[in-house]
Amino acid sequence: MDRLKRQMQFLMEIDKLKKIVRHTRLLDDSRYENDAEHGWHLAMMALILSEHANESVNVLKVVKMVLIHDIVEIDAGDTMVYDTAGREAVVAKEAAAAKRLFGMLPDDQRDELVALFEEFEAKETVEAKFARALDRLEPCIQNCFTNGHSWQKYGIPRDRVEAANAHIGDGSERLWQYIQGLFDECDKKGYFPNRTTEETD
Amino acid sequence: MDRLKRQMQFLMEIDKLKKIVRHTRLLDDSRYENDAEHGWHLAMMALILSEHANESVNVLKVVKMVLIHDIVEIDAGDTMVYDTAGREAVVAKEAAAAKRLFGMLPDDQRDELVALFEEFEAKETVEAKFARALDRLEPCIQNCFTNGHSWQKYGIPRDRVEAANAHIGDGSERLWQYIQGLFDECDKKGYFPNRTTEETD
Repeated sequence: MDRLKRQMQFLMEIDKLKKIVRHTRLLDDSRYENDAEHGWHLAMMALILSEHANESVNVLKVVKMVLIHDIVEIDAGDTMVYDTAGREAVVAKEAAAAKRLFGMLPDDQRDELVALFEEFEAKETVEAKFARALDRLEPCIQNCFTNGHSWQKYGIPRDRVEAANAHIGDGSERLWQYIQGLFDECDKKGYFPNRTTEETD
Repeated sequence: MDRLKRQMQFLMEIDKLKKIVRHTRLLDDSRYENDAEHGWHLAMMALILSEHANESVNVLKVVKMVLIHDIVEIDAGDTMVYDTAGREAVVAKEAAAAKRLFGMLPDDQRDELVALFEEFEAKETVEAKFARALDRLEPCIQNCFTNGHSWQKYGIPRDRVEAANAHIGDGSERLWQYIQGLFDECDKKGYFPNRTTEETD
């Protein structure tokens, strides 16, 4: 029973992901999203959109990656994509978090999840590229449908938004084209600020 | 682009699942859980616990089932497992909801998701039995670690809790044994009420 006990302790520990609040809002603009909701939504996107990946992907592997990729934020917290200094500082914290959290599991499952997390971070395989595209697709849509919430709040103009999200095209050219079409609509509505103001988190 | 447009409209519509509040609470007892968080947690359980299924399961199929099984609640709402009269009334509503929501997708994906939803509801295949076991495992654990919240609130004694959850054993005898062990601990702590009071929702 020791194996099951370790698995259950891990599954109870990751309940905390429901308390990690993100920078983007639900589509009805009622509140901020949390990491567990985000993980569910990305997994649904993986099931529905995998035909648009640039190259054929292993859907189960993509689903696993998007389900687990934010678990390290239980210890390391959420860092916004535009906070580049913060992103660099957080890498060591996330590695330690992966060790502690995935380390709660039996060794074989720990090794599998650590490997998936590292593959996601390395951005090299077709599955990692597509999972990372989905991870950016959702917040882009959320900002487009909540009057450019994060862009306005942190003063991020369109060129910086495009630079931070262009790697969607590494996973799916088609999804990146779709998002650029949405950005054109956002531009017409004035959702992008014109200049960068001091960033805060 | 019409196919992608339909897929994106569906993916945006199901954002509403994040607003469907369940009857069980987060493990830190801070608030009620919602259906999207529940879907993420069940998918994680499917990845970690599938070795304990009574029979070998197709993990991707189980993951798909648990990710989509509550989407109908966007239209039909959440009904508590102990509200048996409510459960019967909701079946027609859920069928209509499946038609509307999955019907937003391209026909092939609509057919796949409706079939998965119906398979889950029919409780016959090994994947459906295991997915349903996970769907009960999470609220059992949540009640065990929040002082028997739902059992206390709705006056459900241990025999009724066991009757409503015994089908966990149809998917996994081992998980059902584990849960019964937790129930023994709950009993010692007085988390189960002694008699049934009038149920409200």
